[in-house]
Amino acid sequence: MQTMTEASTIQPAQRGDARICRGCWDQMHVPIPIRGPLALPFRAFGITRSKMNPNICTICERSFRYVKKQSHVAANATILFADIRGFTHLSGQIERARLSEIVSLFQDRCAEAIWAHDGIVNKQMGDGLMAIFNFPIVRKDHAQAAILAAREIQRLCAAALGSLQLDALQGQPLGVGVGIHSGDVEIGEFSSFRSDFTAIGGTVNLASRLESQAEAGEILISPETAAEAGALTTGATTRLLVLKGIDQPVEARVLATH
Amino acid sequence: MQTMTEASTIQPAQRGDARICRGCWDQMHVPIPIRGPLALPFRAFGITRSKMNPNICTICERSFRYVKKQSHVAANATILFADIRGFTHLSGQIERARLSEIVSLFQDRCAEAIWAHDGIVNKQMGDGLMAIFNFPIVRKDHAQAAILAAREIQRLCAAALGSLQLDALQGQPLGVGVGIHSGDVEIGEFSSFRSDFTAIGGTVNLASRLESQAEAGEILISPETAAEAGALTTGATTRLLVLKGIDQPVEARVLATH
Repeated sequence: MQTMTEASTIQPAQRGDARICRGCWDQMHVPIPIRGPLALPFRAFGITRSKMNPNICTICERSFRYVKKQSHVAANATILFADIRGFTHLSGQIERARLSEIVSLFQDRCAEAIWAHDGIVNKQMGDGLMAIFNFPIVRKDHAQAAILAAREIQRLCAAALGSLQLDALQGQPLGVGVGIHSGDVEIGEFSSFRSDFTAIGGTVNLASRLESQAEAGEILISPETAAEAGALTTGATTRLLVLKGIDQPVEARVLATH
Repeated sequence: MQTMTEASTIQPAQRGDARICRGCWDQMHVPIPIRGPLALPFRAFGITRSKMNPNICTICERSFRYVKKQSHVAANATILFADIRGFTHLSGQIERARLSEIVSLFQDRCAEAIWAHDGIVNKQMGDGLMAIFNFPIVRKDHAQAAILAAREIQRLCAAALGSLQLDALQGQPLGVGVGIHSGDVEIGEFSSFRSDFTAIGGTVNLASRLESQAEAGEILISPETAAEAGALTTGATTRLLVLKGIDQPVEARVLATH
């Protein structure tokens, strides 16, 4: 892609710590410094690295009303949902301080995996999260990026959570479920008082429904995402799912990671 | 309460537009101006009204690491979840621009209702949201405040969404489901890269599960919340619910609003 090639002369470590905001560059071709001395004057005006991904800036988060002058745009993206399986049961069994520790471990490991593949952690909801791939950082291979991130989530969470000894689990390891779907979404601000964007649409809801069906250690991938992912779904089994609110059964691909 | 009495001399319109941040006052007894000329110097330092509730400030959102010097605290609170019933089905049927309009109507009406009763809109997730009552604005009667907010949500959303003519709905009006539960929660920051707080714990998960069982127009209230609510649940019916991840069946009180 032309924009990525141009950007690479400015930001040598594309997958590492970007010096300019990769979202502003990919979306608007504007170089906004986010690291190094050039970033300091921007920081004075409240423009800092985004919590959603440290390689984008807060302009990306708030660009809809002020830069794009429209509250939302259509985009093609891959949506990933992840949460801790059996967390509701666990939350009634162990002390809340311990629960906090588990949630923090989960959220931090997931973010690490998602950022490594240019996704953003768009929403965190207790023991769950929603990530977007291909916005604002453009990744033509967003389906693959999301699957790689999901595998990394499973690997990192298995290491971090699997070793916890919790009596309430009665010997069962804590596990994470992931659901992934690709398609058209509407990205923007959907309330007049929040300035952080999100994605909505049928694509988002199907990804969420897939995640709700994933067992601990599983990644459930929609046929649309799998079709883009090539060899990444090698070894996956197929599971026919009837999902609430979805008319047709979905032939999900299931990657079992442990 | 002593703190509320003291505060009222500084902020005459307690339920209206507060001049000082009600969260910082209730939590720390510190008067932070959020409206009027005294608020200007604070704004220069990035301290503005919170998106979660316009009567609290961004210090409240970020106080855990920098003011309280602990990442989370225990609190007693009422948690409210609300979402649009049948949204997944609808999201596959109508154009995304129309969907955006519906989500915006929903989110704005809910926020209005929640703020009117001193709650905060802590999380927005597409067609759903989570609200907290009794933190950071202290309300001893948080169970009642949440129920009043839920009734207001139903009333406002019925007016805003009920009138929409959508072929995809085949004559059925769009409706909202609400779930409410009160109890001990852990409030704070649960990832090392986000600075906005949330609540976690069994109380939060039960509220979410109740909401998932609410039909359009219904408010499902846990026995714990109902016990605090007095006459506000008059006319409610009882429904025995077996909820995923919850060991004992829950005897929910059901308020049907239309």
